[in-house]
Amino acid sequence: MKKIKIGVIGTGRIGKVHTETIAQNIPEAQIVALADINKSSAKELASRFSVKSVTEDYRDIINNQEIDAVLICSPTDTHARIIIEAAKAGKHIFCEKPVDLDLNTIQNALDAVEKSGVKLMVGFNRRFDSNFKKIKQMVVEGKIGEPHILKITSRDPAPPPPEYVAVSGGMFLDMTIHDFDMARYIVGSEVEEVYVAAGVMVDEKIGKAGDVDTAILTLKFENGTLGVIDNSRQAVYGYDQRVEIFGSEGMVKVDNNAPDNHDYYSRDGVHSSLPLNFFMDRYIEAYASEIKEFCHAVAEDLHVSVGGKDGLLSVAIGLAAKKSLKLKRPVKVSEVFDK
Amino acid sequence: MKKIKIGVIGTGRIGKVHTETIAQNIPEAQIVALADINKSSAKELASRFSVKSVTEDYRDIINNQEIDAVLICSPTDTHARIIIEAAKAGKHIFCEKPVDLDLNTIQNALDAVEKSGVKLMVGFNRRFDSNFKKIKQMVVEGKIGEPHILKITSRDPAPPPPEYVAVSGGMFLDMTIHDFDMARYIVGSEVEEVYVAAGVMVDEKIGKAGDVDTAILTLKFENGTLGVIDNSRQAVYGYDQRVEIFGSEGMVKVDNNAPDNHDYYSRDGVHSSLPLNFFMDRYIEAYASEIKEFCHAVAEDLHVSVGGKDGLLSVAIGLAAKKSLKLKRPVKVSEVFDK
Amino acid sequence: MKKIKIGVIGTGRIGKVHTETIAQNIPEAQIVALADINKSSAKELASRFSVKSVTEDYRDIINNQEIDAVLICSPTDTHARIIIEAAKAGKHIFCEKPVDLDLNTIQNALDAVEKSGVKLMVGFNRRFDSNFKKIKQMVVEGKIGEPHILKITSRDPAPPPPEYVAVSGGMFLDMTIHDFDMARYIVGSEVEEVYVAAGVMVDEKIGKAGDVDTAILTLKFENGTLGVIDNSRQAVYGYDQRVEIFGSEGMVKVDNNAPDNHDYYSRDGVHSSLPLNFFMDRYIEAYASEIKEFCHAVAEDLHVSVGGKDGLLSVAIGLAAKKSLKLKRPVKVSEVFDK
Amino acid sequence: MKKIKIGVIGTGRIGKVHTETIAQNIPEAQIVALADINKSSAKELASRFSVKSVTEDYRDIINNQEIDAVLICSPTDTHARIIIEAAKAGKHIFCEKPVDLDLNTIQNALDAVEKSGVKLMVGFNRRFDSNFKKIKQMVVEGKIGEPHILKITSRDPAPPPPEYVAVSGGMFLDMTIHDFDMARYIVGSEVEEVYVAAGVMVDEKIGKAGDVDTAILTLKFENGTLGVIDNSRQAVYGYDQRVEIFGSEGMVKVDNNAPDNHDYYSRDGVHSSLPLNFFMDRYIEAYASEIKEFCHAVAEDLHVSVGGKDGLLSVAIGLAAKKSLKLKRPVKVSEVFDK
Repeated sequence: MKKIKIGVIGTGRIGKVHTETIAQNIPEAQIVALADINKSSAKELASRFSVKSVTEDYRDIINNQEIDAVLICSPTDTHARIIIEAAKAGKHIFCEKPVDLDLNTIQNALDAVEKSGVKLMVGFNRRFDSNFKKIKQMVVEGKIGEPHILKITSRDPAPPPPEYVAVSGGMFLDMTIHDFDMARYIVGSEVEEVYVAAGVMVDEKIGKAGDVDTAILTLKFENGTLGVIDNSRQAVYGYDQRVEIFGSEGMVKVDNNAPDNHDYYSRDGVHSSLPLNFFMDRYIEAYASEIKEFCHAVAEDLHVSVGGKDGLLSVAIGLAAKKSLKLKRPVKVSEVFDK
Repeated sequence: MKKIKIGVIGTGRIGKVHTETIAQNIPEAQIVALADINKSSAKELASRFSVKSVTEDYRDIINNQEIDAVLICSPTDTHARIIIEAAKAGKHIFCEKPVDLDLNTIQNALDAVEKSGVKLMVGFNRRFDSNFKKIKQMVVEGKIGEPHILKITSRDPAPPPPEYVAVSGGMFLDMTIHDFDMARYIVGSEVEEVYVAAGVMVDEKIGKAGDVDTAILTLKFENGTLGVIDNSRQAVYGYDQRVEIFGSEGMVKVDNNAPDNHDYYSRDGVHSSLPLNFFMDRYIEAYASEIKEFCHAVAEDLHVSVGGKDGLLSVAIGLAAKKSLKLKRPVKVSEVFDK
Repeated sequence: MKKIKIGVIGTGRIGKVHTETIAQNIPEAQIVALADINKSSAKELASRFSVKSVTEDYRDIINNQEIDAVLICSPTDTHARIIIEAAKAGKHIFCEKPVDLDLNTIQNALDAVEKSGVKLMVGFNRRFDSNFKKIKQMVVEGKIGEPHILKITSRDPAPPPPEYVAVSGGMFLDMTIHDFDMARYIVGSEVEEVYVAAGVMVDEKIGKAGDVDTAILTLKFENGTLGVIDNSRQAVYGYDQRVEIFGSEGMVKVDNNAPDNHDYYSRDGVHSSLPLNFFMDRYIEAYASEIKEFCHAVAEDLHVSVGGKDGLLSVAIGLAAKKSLKLKRPVKVSEVFDK
Repeated sequence: MKKIKIGVIGTGRIGKVHTETIAQNIPEAQIVALADINKSSAKELASRFSVKSVTEDYRDIINNQEIDAVLICSPTDTHARIIIEAAKAGKHIFCEKPVDLDLNTIQNALDAVEKSGVKLMVGFNRRFDSNFKKIKQMVVEGKIGEPHILKITSRDPAPPPPEYVAVSGGMFLDMTIHDFDMARYIVGSEVEEVYVAAGVMVDEKIGKAGDVDTAILTLKFENGTLGVIDNSRQAVYGYDQRVEIFGSEGMVKVDNNAPDNHDYYSRDGVHSSLPLNFFMDRYIEAYASEIKEFCHAVAEDLHVSVGGKDGLLSVAIGLAAKKSLKLKRPVKVSEVFDK
């Protein structure tokens, strides 16, 4: 078996996860190079997994003839540029979300990808979670009939630092973007309109940074389905990630995962374990499945299930949400695209 | 013990339930008269529970000197008029929801009640359900801290006949009105604004009758809490009535009730019983608690927990919801009151 | 409709429950007389439900020509004697469990019943609980195939006073007797052999009174099914009543009932309500269904579902359990019958 | 970091699992040799994980000076002999359960281990499962007070081939042995006596091979706790592995794990996923934790949590169970040791 050769750009938290998965669990792929402007981070990771080449400059990876595919795990504002360069160099691309915060910039990157014919997969890892895959499967099989109402609960265990809020594009583009993608994935139809009710309830500094931390977002889909997402930056009981879809023939919902399923009965009540508190714990298997799909798609020249359009539309819905919050009215997603 | 004397106006489904509860389970009250324009229905009920007086004309009850209190279980369009007449006659009043579909009409009835000093209780039975009382209690005890997000799921097992849709005031005034009251009850703050996304997905005839059958309603409360209600006129799996409230210190949610709690494991999966399918089954104990509170309040001259203002405001939110649907924008509840 | 006339013998806790149910909810029956050696207790109850006749001597009820049926709710050591007298007088009989602690005494009572041709129903109320009825129904429908393993968990919230232990016949005849009946009911086959492992873990005074308070009982049924009952006199978290049956085609289990179904998520974990803590709360509806069946069977001359043989065999299994504990070996139920 | 060097003896199903875990997830250990009488199986595994040495003769591993520790994953009847040889050669030992079916043979192996001073860990993987670790932790923390009743449900999804039954020592030594170890682990006290009720309900061929396939086992522990295990060789709904422990201060129980946690509500009922159906899926993480502990204990010279005594006593309880079944009476574990 010829292994595909991979370069990882960005060796922060998520870059490490993907590197580890590929090194340990994906025989058909091999990490041959790591790039990070913090070279010591990259070096440490390289030594753990016997990666031969380390660089501060991601262009060394782009220009490496041996490499078949790149994983872009660097900061958001570098994604589009690296996509374009990697596409021109004929590398297949896995890019973390969001592709960018600007629709034109994303579109330019997608144009480059299309022109070069490389694969582009966007890192919406939750699609690979066993609960969400199950709910999607049941919708596709017609178990709920025609979908009528989608409900997503998505609450983080703790807010990010206010300085991060400023650069992240705000809650809708940083956090809710996962829910927008999940909404499109589960319903199988595009979001046409969004209405936002939101506030600052968790941390005033988030408000001062110009963002909100609590929101209810109503979605209307092209196929008529209605959707609602509720978000909070801080659920004191942990990471709360639930989905429910209701339709003409039934309803299916998935709940959080916990580290164990014990029930303890004492004089005070019945007690059980909180949900897994950290996205790396909750989605560790989803991250692995995701990167396996990418490697397999490259190795076997297959279609990737989450592409550039998914990256583009999730950002567009996020921008529509921001506009709705500002204008205090429902906003069509089409309004955020330049005419 | 001197028993309070009660007359029941309207002996349809809900009139029967209250009559039965009082006759069998409330020693401090006695039904002495029943009125219904369908006299045979009233007669049949009277014979079952040894009620001595039966009439076609509710005014016989209003004018009956022996009677302390009346239960108004007749059609909605008669409520306000009977309230006014009963108040003038010095009778305490229990009135089924909604009081009326018109705010001025309701206000006139409330004015008559206030002038006469009688008690008026409005039949929002769900406040007396053990699940919802529990969630309310936990909010009051501060278990969830400051409330941030309220979620109500309220789906009926089957749509009403289209001809009923026409006279009922539509889904928001007939069905969602219970959820508006629940929202106010749980959060303990008034609804300031409502936004509706809705459609006709269950039955086209409902659309032709000018109503919707599926909706997501976003609420903003005076205290900053955000709320969402999702409604459907038809959940094929039964009556779906759930509430969740999330706040700074935690979250509490209550689920449906089922006729038993078996879990059956077969080759095909794990199976359990559907929720109770009919509001009379689900809320049978709530109806009893409700009418007990009313009788006890009359007998002991106590405050009733659900009053005229609750009747008025739930209709006002419903009218705001209708306006939001029509104007496709969020509507303040204050907009529906005449200036 | 001609109402059947009933006399209640014994107006303690359970006598009150049955009197109330019949007075309030069973139109086809009427309580016409109450007997209790504590006449003031009987009088108080009579006045609440307008029962015309009150006596200290149960023979007044036996001799009352007007009476069709008697409920025997007096202490256990009076049951057999009253059954015999009532049977001779041609009264139908409902008798609380256990019929007696001695098999010959029970058999004599059953002989008198058979001779007179009256109906005898024994008060195994749990058969009328919606959970246990559901599990029985699923077994009968063949949903689990051939039964292989039955598991009953039955734990009381608090031990009885030691003085009661002495007269009650011990845990197996007082408490486990319900589980023996449940085992026979669910499996639909007779218990052939029982083995007991038991100890005194809750209260040393129970040990001093010659009884145990914690036990595991293994049952072998005639049809080959194996069963296990685990008992404790004190579950600090409440009344614990669960049943599971496993067979060739699947498994079904039922859990406890709680006063509400809330789930509270705080920093400390997920919390929910304890099981209903008192047998009167847990089985209130079962008591009502049971007595309704009896009244209906008398009124319509129908078969009763829990008869004298059920009363006899549950005691026999209890005596076999006592013998197993003493002899430290498995004991056949046939060993406790005189040869 | 100096890596410990490991040789794996037996490359069947479980040998593969441990090899994969060490190769991929345990940086402090390295597999340097594989032995299997089926050399092609060993070769295939060696090539997947770059193991340099492959042999048909496990003595090549015993004699390999480079090797620090061996994993014994060969058939049961070879375990004791290999343990003795490995101990003499100064290798630390991980041995799959059961150590042997004969107590003297086991004791001889343990003597050799003790004499040589090497570590011996026995593969009771379930102790490393997150659910069972949680229940153990809660017992140790005193959350349930004094333990009174332990309940273990352990049912396999399908029976083994009858020819395996003959050589495996029967259900109690092959399957229930895990439950005996779990019982000792959770209660933290030794089993003193066992009583078995059992039958052949799943497959007549198992009966013809001299074994049973369905059983209820009652245990008495030295500290007075009572325990019950129920076993079946065939649960058609999958692998059923539950534990409950009840004590003076409360109760804690753990349930099965499923591949996802969806709930589907249709007209027919509420449906969810079956438990994981295969022990490799259910315990995949437990196997990894177990072998990590062993490698870490060897590398850092630490105590192993499951030792030779655990291997011995679980077999002793199994032999007592067989004796109880034969003699139809409770049997003390001490009875199976030679006097």
